[in-house]
Amino acid sequence: MTPSFHHVALIGKYHHAETGTVAPGSREVLEHIAAFLVGQGCRVSMEMQTADNGGFSGHAALTPQEIGEQCDLGLVVGGDGTMLSIGRKLARFSTPLIGINQGRLGFVTDIPLEELKTTLTPMLHGEFEEDRRQLMHGQVLRNGECVFDALAMNDVVVNRGATSGMVELRVEVDGHFVANQRADGLIVASPTGSTAYALSAGGPMLHPSIPGWVLVPIAPHTLSNRPIVLSDSAEIAIELVNGRDASASFDMQSLAALHKGDRILVRRSEYCVRFLHPRGWNYFDTLRRKLRWNEGGS
Amino acid sequence: MTPSFHHVALIGKYHHAETGTVAPGSREVLEHIAAFLVGQGCRVSMEMQTADNGGFSGHAALTPQEIGEQCDLGLVVGGDGTMLSIGRKLARFSTPLIGINQGRLGFVTDIPLEELKTTLTPMLHGEFEEDRRQLMHGQVLRNGECVFDALAMNDVVVNRGATSGMVELRVEVDGHFVANQRADGLIVASPTGSTAYALSAGGPMLHPSIPGWVLVPIAPHTLSNRPIVLSDSAEIAIELVNGRDASASFDMQSLAALHKGDRILVRRSEYCVRFLHPRGWNYFDTLRRKLRWNEGGS
Amino acid sequence: MTPSFHHVALIGKYHHAETGTVAPGSREVLEHIAAFLVGQGCRVSMEMQTADNGGFSGHAALTPQEIGEQCDLGLVVGGDGTMLSIGRKLARFSTPLIGINQGRLGFVTDIPLEELKTTLTPMLHGEFEEDRRQLMHGQVLRNGECVFDALAMNDVVVNRGATSGMVELRVEVDGHFVANQRADGLIVASPTGSTAYALSAGGPMLHPSIPGWVLVPIAPHTLSNRPIVLSDSAEIAIELVNGRDASASFDMQSLAALHKGDRILVRRSEYCVRFLHPRGWNYFDTLRRKLRWNEGGS
Amino acid sequence: MTPSFHHVALIGKYHHAETGTVAPGSREVLEHIAAFLVGQGCRVSMEMQTADNGGFSGHAALTPQEIGEQCDLGLVVGGDGTMLSIGRKLARFSTPLIGINQGRLGFVTDIPLEELKTTLTPMLHGEFEEDRRQLMHGQVLRNGECVFDALAMNDVVVNRGATSGMVELRVEVDGHFVANQRADGLIVASPTGSTAYALSAGGPMLHPSIPGWVLVPIAPHTLSNRPIVLSDSAEIAIELVNGRDASASFDMQSLAALHKGDRILVRRSEYCVRFLHPRGWNYFDTLRRKLRWNEGGS
Repeated sequence: MTPSFHHVALIGKYHHAETGTVAPGSREVLEHIAAFLVGQGCRVSMEMQTADNGGFSGHAALTPQEIGEQCDLGLVVGGDGTMLSIGRKLARFSTPLIGINQGRLGFVTDIPLEELKTTLTPMLHGEFEEDRRQLMHGQVLRNGECVFDALAMNDVVVNRGATSGMVELRVEVDGHFVANQRADGLIVASPTGSTAYALSAGGPMLHPSIPGWVLVPIAPHTLSNRPIVLSDSAEIAIELVNGRDASASFDMQSLAALHKGDRILVRRSEYCVRFLHPRGWNYFDTLRRKLRWNEGGS
Repeated sequence: MTPSFHHVALIGKYHHAETGTVAPGSREVLEHIAAFLVGQGCRVSMEMQTADNGGFSGHAALTPQEIGEQCDLGLVVGGDGTMLSIGRKLARFSTPLIGINQGRLGFVTDIPLEELKTTLTPMLHGEFEEDRRQLMHGQVLRNGECVFDALAMNDVVVNRGATSGMVELRVEVDGHFVANQRADGLIVASPTGSTAYALSAGGPMLHPSIPGWVLVPIAPHTLSNRPIVLSDSAEIAIELVNGRDASASFDMQSLAALHKGDRILVRRSEYCVRFLHPRGWNYFDTLRRKLRWNEGGS
Repeated sequence: MTPSFHHVALIGKYHHAETGTVAPGSREVLEHIAAFLVGQGCRVSMEMQTADNGGFSGHAALTPQEIGEQCDLGLVVGGDGTMLSIGRKLARFSTPLIGINQGRLGFVTDIPLEELKTTLTPMLHGEFEEDRRQLMHGQVLRNGECVFDALAMNDVVVNRGATSGMVELRVEVDGHFVANQRADGLIVASPTGSTAYALSAGGPMLHPSIPGWVLVPIAPHTLSNRPIVLSDSAEIAIELVNGRDASASFDMQSLAALHKGDRILVRRSEYCVRFLHPRGWNYFDTLRRKLRWNEGGS
Repeated sequence: MTPSFHHVALIGKYHHAETGTVAPGSREVLEHIAAFLVGQGCRVSMEMQTADNGGFSGHAALTPQEIGEQCDLGLVVGGDGTMLSIGRKLARFSTPLIGINQGRLGFVTDIPLEELKTTLTPMLHGEFEEDRRQLMHGQVLRNGECVFDALAMNDVVVNRGATSGMVELRVEVDGHFVANQRADGLIVASPTGSTAYALSAGGPMLHPSIPGWVLVPIAPHTLSNRPIVLSDSAEIAIELVNGRDASASFDMQSLAALHKGDRILVRRSEYCVRFLHPRGWNYFDTLRRKLRWNEGGS
């Protein structure tokens, strides 16, 4: 039986801040998965850095762009961070992604490695649930010119500098003045990001079907500055009115140092990311397990 | 010049818990507004109870149903509570509503009485912003039968009894198990209701354009039971697993005493309420004034 | 070797809301513990209701008052609720208490049944940590007269009625006006109670060494009505300004229906409860395990 | 009639981040106050920087140390920040302080300039309430050596770097392990600081009479990492387990860049600051006005 996905790219978690190398044991795991995929009739390629770091040579090594152009599935072995990183890069190709975790359940990397075969076999033959996540498109404007441009799956965050006090931010939505906020910072999170940093800062969870973002102030001076959920069709503008050493970050990674007067714009990207889950998958099951509901703690 | 609204119904705030009568001064206010509307070329009717309580006789007295059938505008003089109450009754007729407040700005009764003429004149001639709010349809099922049925603009609330401890609630969304929650109660709030009780209980604000409800647990036992925003196309079911004297309330008014095993269902109603605001009105302006943002309080 | 405690009272968890009887298996457990204590050279008595419910006859059955007068240690087999209940009754006798749990760690019932012998043996010979918890003394005054009087270890709670809206409460501390609060209710919690209902309502934890209470509003209308920690030497007065069917409860049990104008007074009781823990016990260990810190959940 | 305070030091708000100079109008204000004090029979000196910045020459200019040694009252004209800054410097001399604000009520600068004469006259003759605030003593230990040492009136804050993710902090109290926290940071606030940054981050207010500090995590990863109030007689140690570019700040000012493994110690200082308020002053009045309780905002 021919699989629904003919050419699968394998993407590993190669990003160790300390060593820059592939995690011990990952090579065996990836080769094991590759063999399984070949056995299922798939052609297998390796994402370039995964291949480099792991020293793989039996499969073609492709850049993310080449994966997007040539593969019809990406298989990510790692955590949510790896998934989000490759998701942003493949977004404009609409390549669907499946996430495999090695022990620690992720929000989107939800297939345990040890259930790989039983779970993946039907998925490769078209039995899956598709879960689309909207990407955010963030820009930094300085004197009217765009000086920074990035996609984000989780969040766009404006933060104060480490050695300075609160920032003052002027928030506008579709050109309407919302508020001047003094705070440590401000998070604009997607439904995907609503269970990450935004949750720690006091935000609500947004179901992935909600076409909106949530604005969550971080330690706001005014106690009634509470999280607010906005339509993802709105354009959100955040101006740095005051504050030294402030920065804007996109998925907590790509970073822009901000000047006074800079405007951070957030819009819905034209792209979304397609996660595939096993049949019967349900968002709430993951949520319940990740947040340890119903475990009788205190 | 003929007004866009030919037949206007006047609805007053007659509901004084203590006396059951119209507030002092209201009669003069309503007659003043009626005269103004007549001067603008409108036909004016009075909502039945408003007429009864105020002793008005110069205008036809209509039931809410008759207003819905005959009038093309409702003018509410009172607070948000009055507005929500008549809004529910007129929802199936799509009668638009304008809200006049007597001093205390409301979220939806946003025209101060003293600006009545300058603000209302252009509105009567078609210069307005329309602001649609989705209604919730709530039901209580007992042994599979519907024993209670009500619309709500703000919220559907399940609450513990005063003299008993926490309730235990089983929450399902579209048939998927979400969690068993032990708490004082659970609020399902619309965007309109998100700035009312749900905000006090720790929920986020939802912009009226968000097609969703927010589930806000009240004093939940499990600290990770945080507010969650769900699509308004989902069916939310809340089952009373445990708890004496619990109740379900709809807009904090119509109340159902609950039995163990009762299921409260919340769906999007087929109706929505149409509020009209002056040209240039913006949701965020009201929010900022109501929540006293940017007032420099500590 | 003679034990430090000569006469030990055994107190079981007899309070099953449904059946009013002792939990299955409890009889064996209690007899097992009694035999162990006798083997350690202690005289053993049974708390009256524990004896009645369990059908014990080999040991003297004593009322709480008799336990206070005659015994020099109470051994509680149950959960925190049982511990708090007997703690209030024995407070004026200063009888120390040890708590044994059957599987579910409590904040104050912290010795697992299966570690009974190894843990209890040194404690009976004087090797323990003493942990004193301050009791609250609550009263309800109506027209200047005391109509209700109770001790509380966890909290004094004023709550709205199930079928009515918010209550309005006027709070005074040592005769100084603090605020008029509109809310679902107000909790005054001791350090012991700060990890119970007050925590669910958004309050902080208070270390048992803090000589204070925390006032936690439940779903307050005004967002800046935040929890406040007050000295336990202050007299807190809460007046019911508005609200039907409101009630005051003491440790969520003894309940007083409130009239408008009633004043609830909270003072430090002259008594405190003495919990004994194994040597090396530390409050933070219990906290960390109960709140599941450091477990790597999302 | 001789005043109770013979030698008064005037301290102005000279600290304008932008210009480094005294605020316009301040010179007149300070000279006006000086003249009033002389008229009351007081000897008046100027704090050195206040004198330098304002170009005052009629009065002796004293360093904070000289003020502490020679004066028996400090009169601060400015905001809470100025008050806290001079308060730390004068703490070891026990010099009492009175705070005058120019329009914006502070928590501790609570006398409006326009009420200066009527309010200050009785205070100068001994009619006042004394309000003692405990100082915190913070240290940074690196490889066992103290590399930083500072007093704080409000808070000691450990914060992540602007461009890095969460820090991981190991918290110990009196040598007992409390928790490993992953968060943006951690605040240890005094009662005085509990209404400042700690409140924004979700902490409770502590009445000044509470002999404790509150630990408030900033955007903690684990949702059950809630604020906890600890005795001020405890030694709190916070170790930076992980995190680049983290810093420790004391009253948001003096700053220490942290290395992995650094330990921040917080103890009660041997000093406290003495604020004087007008007779009848009450903490709750200030709180209610600053937090805008009872103003009927939504």
